[in-house]
Amino acid sequence: MTISVAVSGASGYAGGEVLRLLASHPDVTIGAITAHSNAGARLGELQPHLHALADRILVDTTVENLAGHDVVFLALPHGKSAAVAAQLPAETLVIDAGADHRLQDSAEWEKFYGSPHAGTWPYGLPELPGAREKLHGAKRIAVPGCYPTSSLLALLPGFSAGALLPDDVVIVAASGTSGAGKAAKINLIGAEVMGSMSPYGVGGGHRHTPEIQQGLSNASGLDVRVSFTPTLAPMSRGILTTATAKVSPGFAAAEGMDLAATLRQAWVDAYADEPFVRVLPEGRWPSTKSVQGSNYAALQIAYDPNVNRVIACCAIDNLTKGTAGGAVQSMNIALGLAETTGLTLQGVAP
Amino acid sequence: MTISVAVSGASGYAGGEVLRLLASHPDVTIGAITAHSNAGARLGELQPHLHALADRILVDTTVENLAGHDVVFLALPHGKSAAVAAQLPAETLVIDAGADHRLQDSAEWEKFYGSPHAGTWPYGLPELPGAREKLHGAKRIAVPGCYPTSSLLALLPGFSAGALLPDDVVIVAASGTSGAGKAAKINLIGAEVMGSMSPYGVGGGHRHTPEIQQGLSNASGLDVRVSFTPTLAPMSRGILTTATAKVSPGFAAAEGMDLAATLRQAWVDAYADEPFVRVLPEGRWPSTKSVQGSNYAALQIAYDPNVNRVIACCAIDNLTKGTAGGAVQSMNIALGLAETTGLTLQGVAP
Amino acid sequence: MTISVAVSGASGYAGGEVLRLLASHPDVTIGAITAHSNAGARLGELQPHLHALADRILVDTTVENLAGHDVVFLALPHGKSAAVAAQLPAETLVIDAGADHRLQDSAEWEKFYGSPHAGTWPYGLPELPGAREKLHGAKRIAVPGCYPTSSLLALLPGFSAGALLPDDVVIVAASGTSGAGKAAKINLIGAEVMGSMSPYGVGGGHRHTPEIQQGLSNASGLDVRVSFTPTLAPMSRGILTTATAKVSPGFAAAEGMDLAATLRQAWVDAYADEPFVRVLPEGRWPSTKSVQGSNYAALQIAYDPNVNRVIACCAIDNLTKGTAGGAVQSMNIALGLAETTGLTLQGVAP
Amino acid sequence: MTISVAVSGASGYAGGEVLRLLASHPDVTIGAITAHSNAGARLGELQPHLHALADRILVDTTVENLAGHDVVFLALPHGKSAAVAAQLPAETLVIDAGADHRLQDSAEWEKFYGSPHAGTWPYGLPELPGAREKLHGAKRIAVPGCYPTSSLLALLPGFSAGALLPDDVVIVAASGTSGAGKAAKINLIGAEVMGSMSPYGVGGGHRHTPEIQQGLSNASGLDVRVSFTPTLAPMSRGILTTATAKVSPGFAAAEGMDLAATLRQAWVDAYADEPFVRVLPEGRWPSTKSVQGSNYAALQIAYDPNVNRVIACCAIDNLTKGTAGGAVQSMNIALGLAETTGLTLQGVAP
Repeated sequence: MTISVAVSGASGYAGGEVLRLLASHPDVTIGAITAHSNAGARLGELQPHLHALADRILVDTTVENLAGHDVVFLALPHGKSAAVAAQLPAETLVIDAGADHRLQDSAEWEKFYGSPHAGTWPYGLPELPGAREKLHGAKRIAVPGCYPTSSLLALLPGFSAGALLPDDVVIVAASGTSGAGKAAKINLIGAEVMGSMSPYGVGGGHRHTPEIQQGLSNASGLDVRVSFTPTLAPMSRGILTTATAKVSPGFAAAEGMDLAATLRQAWVDAYADEPFVRVLPEGRWPSTKSVQGSNYAALQIAYDPNVNRVIACCAIDNLTKGTAGGAVQSMNIALGLAETTGLTLQGVAP
Repeated sequence: MTISVAVSGASGYAGGEVLRLLASHPDVTIGAITAHSNAGARLGELQPHLHALADRILVDTTVENLAGHDVVFLALPHGKSAAVAAQLPAETLVIDAGADHRLQDSAEWEKFYGSPHAGTWPYGLPELPGAREKLHGAKRIAVPGCYPTSSLLALLPGFSAGALLPDDVVIVAASGTSGAGKAAKINLIGAEVMGSMSPYGVGGGHRHTPEIQQGLSNASGLDVRVSFTPTLAPMSRGILTTATAKVSPGFAAAEGMDLAATLRQAWVDAYADEPFVRVLPEGRWPSTKSVQGSNYAALQIAYDPNVNRVIACCAIDNLTKGTAGGAVQSMNIALGLAETTGLTLQGVAP
Repeated sequence: MTISVAVSGASGYAGGEVLRLLASHPDVTIGAITAHSNAGARLGELQPHLHALADRILVDTTVENLAGHDVVFLALPHGKSAAVAAQLPAETLVIDAGADHRLQDSAEWEKFYGSPHAGTWPYGLPELPGAREKLHGAKRIAVPGCYPTSSLLALLPGFSAGALLPDDVVIVAASGTSGAGKAAKINLIGAEVMGSMSPYGVGGGHRHTPEIQQGLSNASGLDVRVSFTPTLAPMSRGILTTATAKVSPGFAAAEGMDLAATLRQAWVDAYADEPFVRVLPEGRWPSTKSVQGSNYAALQIAYDPNVNRVIACCAIDNLTKGTAGGAVQSMNIALGLAETTGLTLQGVAP
Repeated sequence: MTISVAVSGASGYAGGEVLRLLASHPDVTIGAITAHSNAGARLGELQPHLHALADRILVDTTVENLAGHDVVFLALPHGKSAAVAAQLPAETLVIDAGADHRLQDSAEWEKFYGSPHAGTWPYGLPELPGAREKLHGAKRIAVPGCYPTSSLLALLPGFSAGALLPDDVVIVAASGTSGAGKAAKINLIGAEVMGSMSPYGVGGGHRHTPEIQQGLSNASGLDVRVSFTPTLAPMSRGILTTATAKVSPGFAAAEGMDLAATLRQAWVDAYADEPFVRVLPEGRWPSTKSVQGSNYAALQIAYDPNVNRVIACCAIDNLTKGTAGGAVQSMNIALGLAETTGLTLQGVAP
């Protein structure tokens, strides 16, 4: 089976990563590769690591160029996807790596993004309870944000199991600077970021906050509120999320187990059949390097009796599982391919 | 005035940083420089950045070598300071950069360190309410841990002002790998740590947890409990601490100000006269690079009404303000020198 | 076709990288995974990025464990391969990622390695003129060193074309610290190497010097002498080699071209059909990031009339094209597989 | 004594570093701090590491603002210094950290910089034979480029001693990315440069090439030609220069010494009285980290008999000894201060 795929936004980091993964995907043919201001350039000028595609020429991000493919990936600035998608045939699988179609609540969208809401598409986090079913055969998919991917993977099992209280969730995440995009800004240049950690969007202002709350609320049926603080770490890729929540007084240890073991088992069980989520052996903690370039999420949890909290740490590659890998995984599900097709890459370490 | 100073543990990172600062201190003469297994070596072999002291020879860490100085810095593994200090004259100023004399509660010491408690010395964090008075003329000083320094600076004003609840404190901190010491371990080698973030000591196990709780409890008169998660960041130096706590229902906005502004003002007021703690202008967030190599702490806070939490971010250099700089600052106070003597170095950036 | 493969030295960086590549190789089954002091451990403890193989148990590096496979990769400390290889069946393809069988000149071997010479095997650099033929059907293959791979790729076309003088070759290379191995040494820990460049083995002492000279001499029929200086760069992976040589007075510009263009064309022609060597478009220079995790070498050359020198810059991933990728590429050739099988991974960037 | 100093170009890296050093200089008062597009801003917004000067307001880079100080530092883009300097009083000490007044040969200037030559000022590399005398009492000083500083320090002793041939000099240098300036360019952002080495200006095109040739030619009386290749390394600061030249057939070993020892002694002797240049003990090699933030240059040399070359490696901080530190050192000399005043900072390591 050969699926024709177009990739828009190919000069950015998300688009480049989609292409990197598709270049090794056995079932796809890469068709149009599009960009906006970089249309006309050789891909090799903009993405010199994509050697196999170096001589491909970027074309304009137009409906004409994108139409006629089985699948279209949109890696566009937020606010740009809806207009393009509306003009693509209903039978084309459109996968939006941007934010436009993630949120269910239009008011939240408008509050955080300041523009009219484009509507909600099936959410491309297959590990979210119920999500995989909606992705099967879907023709429109919203790829989750990178922070929401790692935050939801960290805490979903606890909320699904009814183990966690909804109003004391604190998440602090460290991201590689590719998460800030391929943007020529002084605060992102290497001399500034190397050797430095800094927070941003502190105090609830980061746009991924409502998306995290939405996912945890959906899983628990509760109104989950999250204190979310993102930080920039001196590395190109990777997110390490430290997520903590209070244990519900109604959640009891299973027979023959203590509370810590019972909690950990909830995570182990939740991900037992997931191909890309690994709860590490007890005592081992994840590192972003161990998942670099791969679609894996590595997880571990601990219970701290001193404060009655679960602390869950999740490492992903923000560009792979956090963006392009999650997108390809969702594509595979939507098209009925084996979910891991083209995603068997291991982490690149050291 | 010339003060003679001996530095033990001079082959490690803490000892090396003490020497770096003392080399620029106008009022001290560096006497004995001691080490354990490296005794006999030239300092230049072990600390090649200390050019002015390169030809000094390390001598054994013995009471004989340390005695006879006005000041002795101990930068020894924990559990080693008490025996040395006990044999030094009572009139010698002994400054312990290790953990042995920080905790007041012997049970906590034994639980976290597993050895008999050596007793409590005046705590070398001058910014802690009441601490400066105890340091004046002190002959024994316990230098705080690096994580406690940044965590306490982050949250003290809120607890001193009665603004924060004691039982929902969550702290996540990222440290440069020098915080793990100059130790030949596979998990610390550059190929492993570059490009990688990873947590450790998760779930309340890190030894700095009781020290943070002690400082916040002392400041507030409450029994403060902290969820503390340290992480290793791919940088040599620096700590970025993100600390969050719920706002007390009894804490009200000041007249003419909203709650956020009232909270922020508590931090501004608390540090108005501190020479080394800078609450940044509103909207600016600290970075570890901005304090690299300096004794400054850079701070900012936000109030998140969605979760009713204060989020305070504090950046320090773990080796300077977090260890050796704090030690020299405390020495200055103890000796009656101007507190900033020898500590006017700005951050080294970019 | 399924080829059974054993990998020894699996706890180190070279062995880990062989496993990473084999995990995506469509034609192999990974059999025994062996180590020395780490035998008995789960692979996941030692190579946490190899998720698909995490639960495999390392067995002892014995002939018993290695025999019975079609292919055996040896990633052992130098001096250890010969004894193992001697006991493996002649029909087993043995691929030595170590140095033991690279040099032709026993005197050079003994001078640089200080032990008896184990003999010479076909050299696993397919791009070396004549090498591919010898690899076809070979049962013993010596994988080139990482610095020799990049140095030879940089200069071979010029020497093959008779364009370069043999006695003024200067090579300076920067390597990621994984090149120094997975060794617990103070000078390799992250706090020491991050933010730092340093040379080592200066003055002709590095063991890769005779190997580089051998390759260039073989290609040119001349006695090529090389000044080679390696440096450690603050990155995990990658080698950037800057190689320069004087242009032979006898080498003339082609008709209708100037000397610079004639020289560049020699490189372009030499690699026109190579699947993994890319001479970049004029004016573009290689970066190590663009080849990270891939088997590609990226190259560019310039001619400097002021000094009558060619300057060739070559970027590879030291662990992939420089070790494990070159090894798998040679295996493919030896076994008659398509040379690029399992090696279609693009660079992981940013 | 209090000297009033103005600093222009204060929002860039060179200007920021001048301010960092002056903030600890005991004999100066910092007057006007000027910028172009950033005039009106608080310094703390642009240079958050300069805590002691955070509330200073940047004023326009005009002659009015700069005049009336004893010393004016110009840290302007090349081509901008001459016009400003021409309008400053002849008795003002003007120190140009830019390139405008470094080259003696107008034709070289025009070839490499493409603009009319502004003339030649005394060259602020005190270690260059004869330079210190010209700096004494000078009113105009041209600060050397960062690569020329390290390259000249690496090779000067050999050329001064008549030990090196002028036509086989090869220099490869690795610089931290601050060397490329505080510029918002995609190729400089952290995600691109972290984990990556890349060359630029290859083939003789870098503007520091004629400056290096000029310095070596002046020292030797010969027409020295240099192949110079700069590379960008994944670090914020520091230059490691590897410089190699053939040994002159006329240069003989001293009595009782071999050639290698004789050569090394030439370097040791040349720098015996220099306060900031350290030839390391034999067998020790410099690292950029060991000089970070300091005005020291660390050096080592080796002789490689296989190719009859000296290889000299020199590490400096490009912003300190390579720019601002060299500038302050020259200011001290010009004003008759002790040369090391305000420059006693040790390296910041790890």
